[in-house]
Amino acid sequence: MFVLALESTAKSASVALCRDGELICQYYQNSGLTHSRTLLPMVRDMLKNSEVSLDEVDLIAVAIGPGSFTGVRIGVSAAKGLAWAKDKPVLGVSTLEAMAWHGMAAPEGALICPVMDARRNQVYNALFEFVDGKPRRLCADRAVSMDDLVDEIKKYEKMNFLIGDGAKLCYNYLKKFELSALLPPEPMLYQSAWGVAMASLDKQPGAAGELLPKYLRLSQAERERQERMK
Amino acid sequence: MFVLALESTAKSASVALCRDGELICQYYQNSGLTHSRTLLPMVRDMLKNSEVSLDEVDLIAVAIGPGSFTGVRIGVSAAKGLAWAKDKPVLGVSTLEAMAWHGMAAPEGALICPVMDARRNQVYNALFEFVDGKPRRLCADRAVSMDDLVDEIKKYEKMNFLIGDGAKLCYNYLKKFELSALLPPEPMLYQSAWGVAMASLDKQPGAAGELLPKYLRLSQAERERQERMK
Repeated sequence: MFVLALESTAKSASVALCRDGELICQYYQNSGLTHSRTLLPMVRDMLKNSEVSLDEVDLIAVAIGPGSFTGVRIGVSAAKGLAWAKDKPVLGVSTLEAMAWHGMAAPEGALICPVMDARRNQVYNALFEFVDGKPRRLCADRAVSMDDLVDEIKKYEKMNFLIGDGAKLCYNYLKKFELSALLPPEPMLYQSAWGVAMASLDKQPGAAGELLPKYLRLSQAERERQERMK
Repeated sequence: MFVLALESTAKSASVALCRDGELICQYYQNSGLTHSRTLLPMVRDMLKNSEVSLDEVDLIAVAIGPGSFTGVRIGVSAAKGLAWAKDKPVLGVSTLEAMAWHGMAAPEGALICPVMDARRNQVYNALFEFVDGKPRRLCADRAVSMDDLVDEIKKYEKMNFLIGDGAKLCYNYLKKFELSALLPPEPMLYQSAWGVAMASLDKQPGAAGELLPKYLRLSQAERERQERMK
């Protein structure tokens, strides 16, 4: 079974092709170019160079948030378009759960902690631990302050494995409290489409029309509208 | 400074573009297609999609072995061709040293142990430890039996971080002796062009004409010729 996975929820973007849970190809960009310019050419080039056609793909998986509103929309729209055009099932996964797969190399018992910059002094986060080779969720996706997150992490008294564009900041916070943390090498520091493919494996896909982003917070435009309405 | 890195020494192949030590783009294939078919299209597509021309690249780095004789030749030939055509400096790095960079996420004090299937009951290996954020070499690249390697690893009495197509086999060996080992997630389990780029950073490049593969062992054709000459 071929899974085509898309990830464009933050600054980096990537696409991956997996066959029966094994990585066949991954194409990753962190160039600063907009995902609306780079994401679909990466899909086209990757499929062509792997000699796999979109017709052969069994599932399209995509990270649906949390993340940058524009980034999430680009990924979800691209997945919808590809799935609709070829009548393929599609599956949206949590950005944070996909990132948790990067913690596979963490020592046993480590707390897997994806941390994404959510602006407005918050980070997007959820906590996981690896059990039987898979990340197990310890709490729901949420937007929290770094202070609250570090307070919570401290209570676990575990080795912390950090992932995401907030990982280095969190690493330095934890160091202040003499808490040990590990950071992955750069190709696994940010989101990856491979993580999205892995997170899709045990879930039930749906139709392109049902796929929706999960922003966790209101967009700036909606916040401002609500302020005006008060 | 832009580094264009190539890796094709085993079953997987990858190309990467780094700017001042930061990963801009990486394109990875483990499809089983021959590298002579996939490697240069990946370079072309990656540069185009990153909006960086070959003229802007300052250094071409390539893994020169150990590894599959054919794979090493494809990578070295591609690097020579690109460097010669554009009069760029080129740098060959040890496959194993490039892989050692994947051990960046390993717990402090871990033994970083790249293990590549070298056939004929041997593995290619060298041992490293991370010091000040870089892998420090503990022995030269060599071809050894898995038994001899495991005997040597046991003496270190450390957490072992394994990388490469021999990593899972070595992991199972070590488990028999109740020795703890960690494996990276699949996108970092095999060689990567990112590792090649990182390993190139502190070295002196040369001209395309000087670049040579380092096979470590005689090729099958050469071995058979020597047998016949006896």
